Order: sequence, then C-alpha cells, then structure tokens
Amino acid sequence: MKNIQVTLARRPAGKPRPEDFAVVESDTRDISEGEALVRNLYVSLDAGFRNWMDEGSGDNVLPAMPLGQAVMGLVLGQVVASRRPGLEEGSYVMARLAWEQYSIATPGDFLVDIEDDGVHPLSYHLGILGDTGMSAYFGLIDIGKPAPGETVLVSAAGGAVGSVAGQIAKLRGARVIGFAGGDDKCRRLVEEIGYDHAVNHRADDLSQRLAEACPNGIDVYFDNVGGPLQEVVLDHIAQGARIPFCGAVADYGSQERGKGPSNLFQLVTKCALMQGFMTHTQVDRYPEARRQLSAWLAAGQIRAIEQMYQGVENCGVAFSDLFAGRNFGKTVVRVAD
Amino acid sequence: MKNIQVTLARRPAGKPRPEDFAVVESDTRDISEGEALVRNLYVSLDAGFRNWMDEGSGDNVLPAMPLGQAVMGLVLGQVVASRRPGLEEGSYVMARLAWEQYSIATPGDFLVDIEDDGVHPLSYHLGILGDTGMSAYFGLIDIGKPAPGETVLVSAAGGAVGSVAGQIAKLRGARVIGFAGGDDKCRRLVEEIGYDHAVNHRADDLSQRLAEACPNGIDVYFDNVGGPLQEVVLDHIAQGARIPFCGAVADYGSQERGKGPSNLFQLVTKCALMQGFMTHTQVDRYPEARRQLSAWLAAGQIRAIEQMYQGVENCGVAFSDLFAGRNFGKTVVRVAD
Repeated sequence: MKNIQVTLARRPAGKPRPEDFAVVESDTRDISEGEALVRNLYVSLDAGFRNWMDEGSGDNVLPAMPLGQAVMGLVLGQVVASRRPGLEEGSYVMARLAWEQYSIATPGDFLVDIEDDGVHPLSYHLGILGDTGMSAYFGLIDIGKPAPGETVLVSAAGGAVGSVAGQIAKLRGARVIGFAGGDDKCRRLVEEIGYDHAVNHRADDLSQRLAEACPNGIDVYFDNVGGPLQEVVLDHIAQGARIPFCGAVADYGSQERGKGPSNLFQLVTKCALMQGFMTHTQVDRYPEARRQLSAWLAAGQIRAIEQMYQGVENCGVAFSDLFAGRNFGKTVVRVAD
Repeated sequence: MKNIQVTLARRPAGKPRPEDFAVVESDTRDISEGEALVRNLYVSLDAGFRNWMDEGSGDNVLPAMPLGQAVMGLVLGQVVASRRPGLEEGSYVMARLAWEQYSIATPGDFLVDIEDDGVHPLSYHLGILGDTGMSAYFGLIDIGKPAPGETVLVSAAGGAVGSVAGQIAKLRGARVIGFAGGDDKCRRLVEEIGYDHAVNHRADDLSQRLAEACPNGIDVYFDNVGGPLQEVVLDHIAQGARIPFCGAVADYGSQERGKGPSNLFQLVTKCALMQGFMTHTQVDRYPEARRQLSAWLAAGQIRAIEQMYQGVENCGVAFSDLFAGRNFGKTVVRVAD
C-alpha cells in the first residue's frame, strides 16, 4: 500500500522548523506475527516529542529518533490488519507510532484501545479526553485545588492543556487569568475559552499588568511553560499558593539551560508549593477524569478547542507552529476520515 | 537597673560582622500599665532576623530595625515585674524582645509562656523544643515524609534545624546524608549527630560526590539554604522526590537576587514537589510536635546540639558566626543563669 510519511530530515536547531522534515512516499510492508497495520486517522502534535529529536537525546523512556525515518508521534488510527493477539481488525487505537498514513505496530509499542462512543469526535481522545485533558484535570484538581473565588493563572492558556485547565478552574468557581503571546490570542482566550482576563506575556510591563490582573495575588499558577515567566509570577503569588508544573515548552528545544527564577525563596515566604507531574503516572485514574470531562462536554459546560490541519504532509508545519506560538487549543492533523 | 545592650551600630553590608553591633550600657525604665520587665536568660540567634536589618526592610511581619537601638531577637527570660494582665512575676516566657539583659515587653509584643518541666534545660525551648525543632519536625514529617530505606539529604545539616531534621529522618529509618561546609563539620555530622554520610558542599566535584553518596537518587531534600546548591541537588533527585524548603540562609544578607536553578524542570521529569513553609503557620500543632521531641530526648533517641556563647555582649559575634558558617547546632547566648 502507498504510504506518505513525514521523516526527520535533519535535527532541529532549537525550535523545529518545517524544513527539518521531509515528505516521502513508500510502500507498507507485510506484517509479521505479533504486529498490526494501523491506518492513521489523526496525528497528535505534542511539544514533548521535541525531546527525542536531538542527537543522543534517548532516555529511559524512549530512544532518540533516527534521521530519515518517519517522525515518532502519538496517533489515533484504525486497525486494518492484525496478527497481534487481542487486537481486532476494525478497532480504534491510540498509539505511539509515527507521522504517516499507515503504521505498523510492533510488539511492545504503546497502544491502547479507544471506544468510539458515537458522542464525541474520535480526535478528542488525542486532546481533551486524552493525555492533555488528563494533565489539565489532574494538575488542576489534585495539585492546584482552586477554591471558589480564588485566582487561577494559566500559562500557555490557549494551548492543549491550558485551554482545558482554564475551563475546569472556571467551573470550580475561580477567577481565571490566562497568559498568551500577543493581543489576538489574549482576545481569543476571553471570547472563545471564557477566561475572565488575559495578559500578554510579551508585554514590557508584565509584572505591573499581572499585579493589576491579580490584585489579591495568584492562588494557583498552572504552569505549562516554565522558563522566565516563573520569576515574574513568583513575585505575585498569594499566601499558600499552589503551582502545578506541567511541562516546559519554554525549555524544549533550547540548546542550553536557561536562567532559573532568582526568587524561589518566595515559596518559603508564601508557604507555597510547586509540584511537577507527568500524567502517565495517574493512568489508573484516567477513567474517572474522562467520565467527568465527557459529562462536562455533553452538558456544554466545557469546550474542546482543536486546531485541525488537513493531510499528513502538514505534520511538520503543525509541529513547528506549536513552537512558534501559532497554536490555539489542541493541535491535530487529520490524516484520513 | 543597669542594662547591657547590644545595638545595631550600622546596617550590615551583606553578611553581618561583629563591628556592625555595639555594646552599650543604659538603665531600665519603670514599666507602665500593660507592660512587663523581663530578665533575659538566653538569646536565640536566628539568621532570619537579618531580614529586618536593612534600611527600609520592614514588611507586613515587622518593621526594619532602627539604628542605635538594641537588636531585635528572640529571647527566653523570667518576668521580674509585671503590669500585664495574666502574666505572673517569676514565670518564664519566650518573646520577641532584644539583645539585652533586661527587656520591657509592651502590649502587643509576641510573648508565650514557657513551662519549666524540670527535665529539659530551658534553653531547649529556643531550639529543639522551639521554632527550629518545630521547623525540622513539620518540614520532615509533613512534607518530606521519608519512608524507611529512602535517602534523605539535609543542607546546613549541622545547623539548628538541620541537626534535628537529620536525626528525625534517621529515626524514621531513612539513610541520611548531610551537607556541611568543610571537612571538620562533615566529620562532626557523622560523629556527633549520627548522619550516615556527609558531603562537603564546597567540594569542586560536588555533583560527582553527591552521585556517589546517593546512588539511588535523593528522595527527600530538606533544604535549609536555597541558593546554588539547589541546582546541584535537582540533578540527583529520585522519582517522586519531596523538597521541604525551610529557609534560605544563602539568600539572607545578599544584596541582590542570586541566580535560580536552571534545571527546575527536573521537578516535572521526576514528578517531584518543592514546598516552602514557615513553622508559625503550624502553631496549633506545636504541642504534638513538642511531646514527640520531648519523648525522643528523654529516651536518648535524639540529641539537642547547642552552641552556647556566654554573656549578652557576645550576641553580635554569635550572630556573625552564623553567617560565617561557624555554627554547629542551635546558637544560643547565655545572658544570665
């Protein structure tokens, strides 16, 4: 079968650019015992995968991605041929496979069954009902614990995680402020996601603007980016603040370690907590979170924000857009219907 | 009555030095309604008071200390005359008063009654049974939560808080490593306090030494100092690490903010937690902690380490020694018997 793939043409220098990827065409091979052929419907673009694009970047989670091969990523697809026990043809799966039309899942590949509930679009399983939704849910509920009337600040507030975290905080009765880059995005945070207020994190007088937006201080900082914003925010945290630290887009793709916040002692003065988390450690509790998010979606209390690209050949552009700040909501590429 | 006082002669530039303080003699005045005259027995030296020695350093806790007046500090004394309702002559009190032989407690001054239990020396109420012991107890038990066999690292491991935290961690069955400045202090950590191992934090190959001392990573970092050590330690934390952040001696007395840790993202990768705390927020639970520490002391399972100076005139030297790293255990000045 003809298979369009997007390969890693060269290792990105810092932020990925479309030229780092190449579109190639090949043929699928026959599957062996234990394997399955998956027709990819959607590819999820996640900044975290940048981690394995550098030479020697392999870790105890995954090896470094090889040059010239289809880029590793999270996909949602349908099984079209299976020699893997327990995996039926026609079933939907979410798996760590690659940017291509057809993938072969080999034994040991991460792969979970997805139920098509007929209610929510399948692509939601890559976003609000998938890892990014889970990150928002557990980070906010378990670590942030916003109380009604408290002030919650979300960085990358329009992103895949942030857009969900902001909405959950709002449902919990908090006053919710979002950071985004640029006035247009700030407007969209308020109009499309329901933030009470948005602050352009590129503003020169950022500290001043933050003080005005959060006159009682910041009770919860849902931090999706790390980096230099932490120092500005720490100056404005309230007594007993909680900082769920979810990811660090600001750190991905940088060639060297940045400068850390010089005012971490604020954690002491304010008796505050900063807690890092990786959602996969909570996998037992995914059903609980998914049920709740599904119910909110069905009741129209929360919206799934997706930025959908068409065609597998656009994976490189979509991925690069994430780092250029051109994303809003969960970035997904539709590969097939 | 003649009263020897130690005053703030000039504002310290960075770390306090003995010349920043002056010994003067005055006379006590008569007390007014609501006041009490306290004969100070012990003065507690605590790095935190450095905070209020700078021009304009007043905050919502306390005003900046005025020049030329007795230095504010925590004392333990006996009431010799009282016009304060509920405060009896002859009783013992711990209070935020000053470096002097006699202090007048005015209405509103922080002051708590101390029971002389006839078992433990009164001075212990400034250390292991006082705020520093409470800091060690709550920071380690509530935030650090060491499990048997885990690795606990303590910075300023021989200090007032660290010497207690290290011993509690040991009682909890952890393997306990201490940071101290200099080989002599490191030896004392092991011999006098019972640390399993000590690491000289001034070593050139610190990261390497830490890796050797903590081959399974650091499960709990009881951080008494903040500053540059944080970055080194973060590189070696174990999955699920907890960092009770207790104070920041490294930050007191510095003229500008230092450089923060550039690898805070380790908190995410390791799903780790850093939590600042100020013990006074736990004041309701002091009796619980004090009972436990008293019991351990009585059973000989824990030792109170004190560095005792003689004579109120030595308060400035004792305080300066704290910042010069010449302290071991709780620093106390005996003013009278």
